[in-house]
Amino acid sequence: MTAGEVGLADQFAIHMTLARYCHRCDDADFEGLVALFTADAVFTYGNRSAHGSAELLAFFRDTQSRPEQRGKHLTVNEVYEPDGDRGDRVLAASDFVFLRFASGRLVPAIAGRYHDQFVRVDGEWRIARREVLTLEAFG
Amino acid sequence: MTAGEVGLADQFAIHMTLARYCHRCDDADFEGLVALFTADAVFTYGNRSAHGSAELLAFFRDTQSRPEQRGKHLTVNEVYEPDGDRGDRVLAASDFVFLRFASGRLVPAIAGRYHDQFVRVDGEWRIARREVLTLEAFG
Amino acid sequence: MTAGEVGLADQFAIHMTLARYCHRCDDADFEGLVALFTADAVFTYGNRSAHGSAELLAFFRDTQSRPEQRGKHLTVNEVYEPDGDRGDRVLAASDFVFLRFASGRLVPAIAGRYHDQFVRVDGEWRIARREVLTLEAFG
Repeated sequence: MTAGEVGLADQFAIHMTLARYCHRCDDADFEGLVALFTADAVFTYGNRSAHGSAELLAFFRDTQSRPEQRGKHLTVNEVYEPDGDRGDRVLAASDFVFLRFASGRLVPAIAGRYHDQFVRVDGEWRIARREVLTLEAFG
Repeated sequence: MTAGEVGLADQFAIHMTLARYCHRCDDADFEGLVALFTADAVFTYGNRSAHGSAELLAFFRDTQSRPEQRGKHLTVNEVYEPDGDRGDRVLAASDFVFLRFASGRLVPAIAGRYHDQFVRVDGEWRIARREVLTLEAFG
Repeated sequence: MTAGEVGLADQFAIHMTLARYCHRCDDADFEGLVALFTADAVFTYGNRSAHGSAELLAFFRDTQSRPEQRGKHLTVNEVYEPDGDRGDRVLAASDFVFLRFASGRLVPAIAGRYHDQFVRVDGEWRIARREVLTLEAFG
């Protein structure tokens, strides 16, 4: 499969969903964040996972809501490929960094890769599955 | 308004203007930097603002010209939407990080969000208004 | 030359090659990494350079293969322009940051700019020349 098989307009729309995820996460707009996912989406982060809008909302509120954890998510290096041949599913891999303040200094706290499945629902590309793989320090 | 309403070619052209802003800023090409703005552009950073090419040039020379302040701007997470229905104005929100050396180490010195209005002038997308909102450490 | 002269589909395809470079580098997939280059590509990093697939493979294995050097490459701020008028060559400038762990903390170890020449070979955009210019600390 080559990249070109995902249409340009779809790539742009998915890119913008990736961007909105960062904005809403950092702005603590968790309802808006969950609205980027399908109703039965699965979100996996390490050994934790959330399934469906209610669990996702609880997960984001629990892990993101403390002000001292707010910061800046950056999502870059996106690669897209079709998932099947129906044209309404796309697999995306992208890299992210999350910066936040620690002891008054801005530091990169987490970096990793998102493995996503996007599904087109009512003309909008939503995240049906997101697996977060974080970069770990070497022993 | 949906993202798709800004044409793909326009999104790419605006993306490239965002990139050139970073390049020219980091390269200390302040005339080139100001050329990315409209002649009467307004730039706001915290409680400082500059209005028009001459003030912008003075502002960038004043705040960016010391070599020890040079570094690397990264602009990511761009979201676009039309501003009105004439097709020649676009609102963009994006996130940025500015890295520079401090005591011999490369550090993320500033992170924040750009809120921009782009206007098409003579076939080119220029920045008519940029408001810089920086991420602040929590007390 | 204006940005618009490089077709949108080509810009997207090149963007994805830039992203794959980061992924494969960080995943230590050096054969996959070299496959993003033309067979006679030239890669220059400071005063070191590699010419052709075999030298590139040796270069990446030598400089990237130690686990403690693995991390996360981010490539952003891409600007494209045609290289000549045949439509099969593009010049790209982009900025990058490489984050890695040092003493258990994630730090931006290197930042800089890629100056690339892309060439379309058998329908795919490959890197024919990459020059890496790193940002240096000021004395």
